[in-house]
Amino acid sequence: MSTVTVTLPDGSPLELEVGATVEDAAYEIGPGLGSDTVAGVVDGELVDKHTPLPDDADLEIVTDGADEYVDVLRHSAAHVFAQALQRLYPEAELTLGPWTDDGFYYDVTGVDLDEDDLEDIEEEAHEIIAEDLDIERVMLDREAALDRYEDNEYKQEILATEAAGEDPVSFYEQGEFYDLCQGPHVESTGEIGGFALLEMSASYWRGEEDNDTLTRVYGTAFPTEEELDEYLERRQKAKERDHRKIGQEMDLFSIDETTGPGLPLYEPNGKTVLNELSEYVADLNREAGYDEVETPHVFRTELWKKSGHYDNYVDDMFLLDVNDEEYGLKPMNCPGHATIFDQKSWSYRDLPIRYFEDGKVYRKEQRGELSGLSRTWSFTIDDGHLFVRPDQIEAEVLSIMDIILDILDTFSLDYTVQFATRPEKSTGSDEIWEKAESQLEAVLEQEGIDYVVEEGDGAFYGPKIDFAFEDALGRHWDGPTVQLDFNMPDRFDLTYTGEDNEDHRPVMIHRALYGSYERFFMVLIEHYNGKFPPWLAPEQVRILPVSDDNIDYCEEIAAELDDFRVEIEDRSWTVGKKIQVAHDDKVPYMMVIGDDEEAAGTISVRDRKEREEKDLELADFEQHLEREVEQKRTAVTYLV
Amino acid sequence: MSTVTVTLPDGSPLELEVGATVEDAAYEIGPGLGSDTVAGVVDGELVDKHTPLPDDADLEIVTDGADEYVDVLRHSAAHVFAQALQRLYPEAELTLGPWTDDGFYYDVTGVDLDEDDLEDIEEEAHEIIAEDLDIERVMLDREAALDRYEDNEYKQEILATEAAGEDPVSFYEQGEFYDLCQGPHVESTGEIGGFALLEMSASYWRGEEDNDTLTRVYGTAFPTEEELDEYLERRQKAKERDHRKIGQEMDLFSIDETTGPGLPLYEPNGKTVLNELSEYVADLNREAGYDEVETPHVFRTELWKKSGHYDNYVDDMFLLDVNDEEYGLKPMNCPGHATIFDQKSWSYRDLPIRYFEDGKVYRKEQRGELSGLSRTWSFTIDDGHLFVRPDQIEAEVLSIMDIILDILDTFSLDYTVQFATRPEKSTGSDEIWEKAESQLEAVLEQEGIDYVVEEGDGAFYGPKIDFAFEDALGRHWDGPTVQLDFNMPDRFDLTYTGEDNEDHRPVMIHRALYGSYERFFMVLIEHYNGKFPPWLAPEQVRILPVSDDNIDYCEEIAAELDDFRVEIEDRSWTVGKKIQVAHDDKVPYMMVIGDDEEAAGTISVRDRKEREEKDLELADFEQHLEREVEQKRTAVTYLV
Repeated sequence: MSTVTVTLPDGSPLELEVGATVEDAAYEIGPGLGSDTVAGVVDGELVDKHTPLPDDADLEIVTDGADEYVDVLRHSAAHVFAQALQRLYPEAELTLGPWTDDGFYYDVTGVDLDEDDLEDIEEEAHEIIAEDLDIERVMLDREAALDRYEDNEYKQEILATEAAGEDPVSFYEQGEFYDLCQGPHVESTGEIGGFALLEMSASYWRGEEDNDTLTRVYGTAFPTEEELDEYLERRQKAKERDHRKIGQEMDLFSIDETTGPGLPLYEPNGKTVLNELSEYVADLNREAGYDEVETPHVFRTELWKKSGHYDNYVDDMFLLDVNDEEYGLKPMNCPGHATIFDQKSWSYRDLPIRYFEDGKVYRKEQRGELSGLSRTWSFTIDDGHLFVRPDQIEAEVLSIMDIILDILDTFSLDYTVQFATRPEKSTGSDEIWEKAESQLEAVLEQEGIDYVVEEGDGAFYGPKIDFAFEDALGRHWDGPTVQLDFNMPDRFDLTYTGEDNEDHRPVMIHRALYGSYERFFMVLIEHYNGKFPPWLAPEQVRILPVSDDNIDYCEEIAAELDDFRVEIEDRSWTVGKKIQVAHDDKVPYMMVIGDDEEAAGTISVRDRKEREEKDLELADFEQHLEREVEQKRTAVTYLV
Repeated sequence: MSTVTVTLPDGSPLELEVGATVEDAAYEIGPGLGSDTVAGVVDGELVDKHTPLPDDADLEIVTDGADEYVDVLRHSAAHVFAQALQRLYPEAELTLGPWTDDGFYYDVTGVDLDEDDLEDIEEEAHEIIAEDLDIERVMLDREAALDRYEDNEYKQEILATEAAGEDPVSFYEQGEFYDLCQGPHVESTGEIGGFALLEMSASYWRGEEDNDTLTRVYGTAFPTEEELDEYLERRQKAKERDHRKIGQEMDLFSIDETTGPGLPLYEPNGKTVLNELSEYVADLNREAGYDEVETPHVFRTELWKKSGHYDNYVDDMFLLDVNDEEYGLKPMNCPGHATIFDQKSWSYRDLPIRYFEDGKVYRKEQRGELSGLSRTWSFTIDDGHLFVRPDQIEAEVLSIMDIILDILDTFSLDYTVQFATRPEKSTGSDEIWEKAESQLEAVLEQEGIDYVVEEGDGAFYGPKIDFAFEDALGRHWDGPTVQLDFNMPDRFDLTYTGEDNEDHRPVMIHRALYGSYERFFMVLIEHYNGKFPPWLAPEQVRILPVSDDNIDYCEEIAAELDDFRVEIEDRSWTVGKKIQVAHDDKVPYMMVIGDDEEAAGTISVRDRKEREEKDLELADFEQHLEREVEQKRTAVTYLV
């Protein structure tokens, strides 16, 4: 074989000599493309343009116009950071420094940095960018590579593991700086238009908590300074509405060292919001014919062996030993629901059976990965499981989709939808897969939902539709999901008696509306910037007496509004301060009540948009608020 | 010292020679008492009448009129069982056989018994009772005792442990039977008027699951046959309303081997009842100014060390290891609530702060002790914690007591009340204890509650009031509780700012209304015999169409009743069978709907007391049911 053949994005084949690189292929396609080539994507992986092409590979050329270009740029930016660091702190040791979704990080050691030092390093990095140093790949023989790192045990370990088979070894160099690296990189440091260091945190070598602690420095880079500025602005806004900050200010939740990381405690305000969210979906579930169930948080691991979760999930499970038997905190609610279904015998007329539960699950995450409510050890899924006949799939998924669209509409959240189809390895017959996929697709079409098909990305047990919420920073968060399951009913030997009097296997549908309450709460806090719609607001109305003499009248008003969450601000502050604090607390409506109001038997209303009106009727306000809450309106609309 | 002095129940001292026994003391008091003496209670422990009296002991003489007499009788009945067993199965080995609250058991091995064998053994036991054998205490030297048990490793172990220091060793003998035993016993087997064997189960030597499995035979005995019959009748009734049986019949809950013992799963019907119970107390709590919170089920054990639970509770806790740190499932909700209180700073004007949570806790019980919902590994406390100023204790306890009495009234449950006061070892000043006790007592008096004072039985951290439910079998179950706590606020260094601008320590009040949902649910299932009041009934109305032609009209009726839990029985059965099944399912109201009803636009109503009326207005029924549910009435009253 003296040639290799690669497939280009348009499906056409390209024949090349053995040993031809990504860059060679680009030149083969056209000299313009060849000179613009930054890197390649070979079988889905971003690689240096000098990488030789294997036979039968899919190839995409990356130029500076491609989406992947910014990843390459950020990879180079990580090297620029490392070079700047070593210029200022020659004793600093480098470990690993990859690009990420919105920048890069580098884990370093041997230096004791604080946030202030980042400024100096950033300045030095800008210097390096101004120097416009060429970035070059240099192949060194193994001996020379080991010599370079005789004092750096981390790089030695990389040479002994990931790079074990390589000789020569790939380095990238720019000016006096070199780094053990597979690339790809841009041509020169000057290509980086915008560069910034963002923050620092502790990390562990290889992410393992038993290993050495390192310092992780986060940064980002863009082709232009404008793009960087835009990013930094968005980031600043997101920081201001960080749910951890707002959560503390509004007394929503807390997480602390003594009680344990990743285990949120909900204060009264947070619990009020959670209760409203829970009641909302419970109502929707009941209307749609779901029955609530309750399952334990701890099960014998026998159950997880039966369901198959044990094999795949055991490393992420919290296990405990009870009298030499193994138990585990549940990572999933489905096996519990399958167990409940299995308590009775069912006829084809009884199906579909629909269970729901606010089910808390537990999944071990690296401590370093835990973050507020977005990544926790315990979280609550608004979980639902349906046991349906194959002919009922479409109608049930349609009904679920209606509920999901209802909910998305209520919260006006941006979202994207993925439809994931049969993977290579899968359980269930061709017939049931084909039918199920076409039923799901029919529902998506019928609902007029924009979606992306992810071919082969379904679970091995069935196809699925996943929603993701998009937040202010453009990040995506797992949201509602609908998954068909042809496997668990087999594993639990679930049956119903058909019209033919024979046993039949139901199909199971897994479905969540919010996904995780914790994550959804986080998304909402940041989405609303803490200014929850009146139906969700922990405190809906705050009454501000002008003087202590007005308190009795305020209490009459509060008594009248006893269907709502109303507080009277009775601290001895000026009205101005009372208003300010109520604004800071993001209370939708305030009532300033003084002698005038009391004498006239009226109210004055202010809303959190700083609109104000006097001489209003309480009954009128009450009626309005009732409607606003009932209809779950997002905005405060009484004083429009 | 040649004399000992004991204190009699009336407080008077009695001086006796050293070595004098319980019986000697009785004769000293009076020859009549001496000859009636069956046993004694020395410092609270029931002992043989031949036991020598230690100096300074409290002594009570037990005659056949005393409450303790039946314990002694049952202890002898255990020996009668053992004798009968060995007559029929000479190979049977005895281990331990104590009396219990309502009978006795004996753990045996070396025989393979089934339920049928119990009848033969019972017959032989009646024979032994008829033989009226004298029961005598015989002291044997250690050597002879060991000889008797050379083939019985269990008795050998007892000789080596509990009886390690004894020589001679105490035996009791009747006819050919002997048993290593400290007594006390009645004079002869003929004293047993009523004797019955009840059931068998597996048990473990010393109750430890790692030890040998034994067979436990349960029985009971009474001075007269009438008392036995009465007991057996009550027991039969209780068996019929056993919550485990009803729970399965009504699809309320299930517990199984794969999911784990002691960990109930609630099916839709059970969850409906639990939800109603939970909403009822949540409403009461909110009205009384409580805020709902939510705390994790898992905490670092640091928290339990801080709260002090770790020292006392660690053996009963489910522990787990996360990255070499110890975590535990919570056995209590209080430290979580104290942590939430500690998130903010409070002024004296903010207090009392009142939190509530349906908080699931986990306590390790022996597997053999687990039983349905009455003894579980995980159970949910309707927990409340208040943080109050010392001057607020009385008003707050009064408000709690109002809620408790309200609840007890709603369920018409029998109960008893104990007021437990300062124990010898306690924390907190004399002043605060005295004041707190007098405040609690004042509340009990003010509410007109009958209560028993348990002197010195309070927790070390504060006095408490405990309610216990009494069930059909006369058993008592822990119910509502109110406990003051002067300790945890110290351990968590909780403070509020007083009017004097100084830091002050709040008092914590622990309070539960139902106690444990699981146990309360069990009590209710048995109390109502599954016939839940309409507000609790999983299904409130079942509509029974006479023929399929009437189904549309039935659906109209169901739509009208959409505030209630209504089902239509659409299986193709006769009306008679539909009624029968609805009765078996204990549905409060049925509607039989045929052509007549449909033509007239009326309904026919049947209730579960088998009353029936035709030609009724749906609107009238609906209004009535609304009231019945709203008022939480126990009985079905529409057709009275």
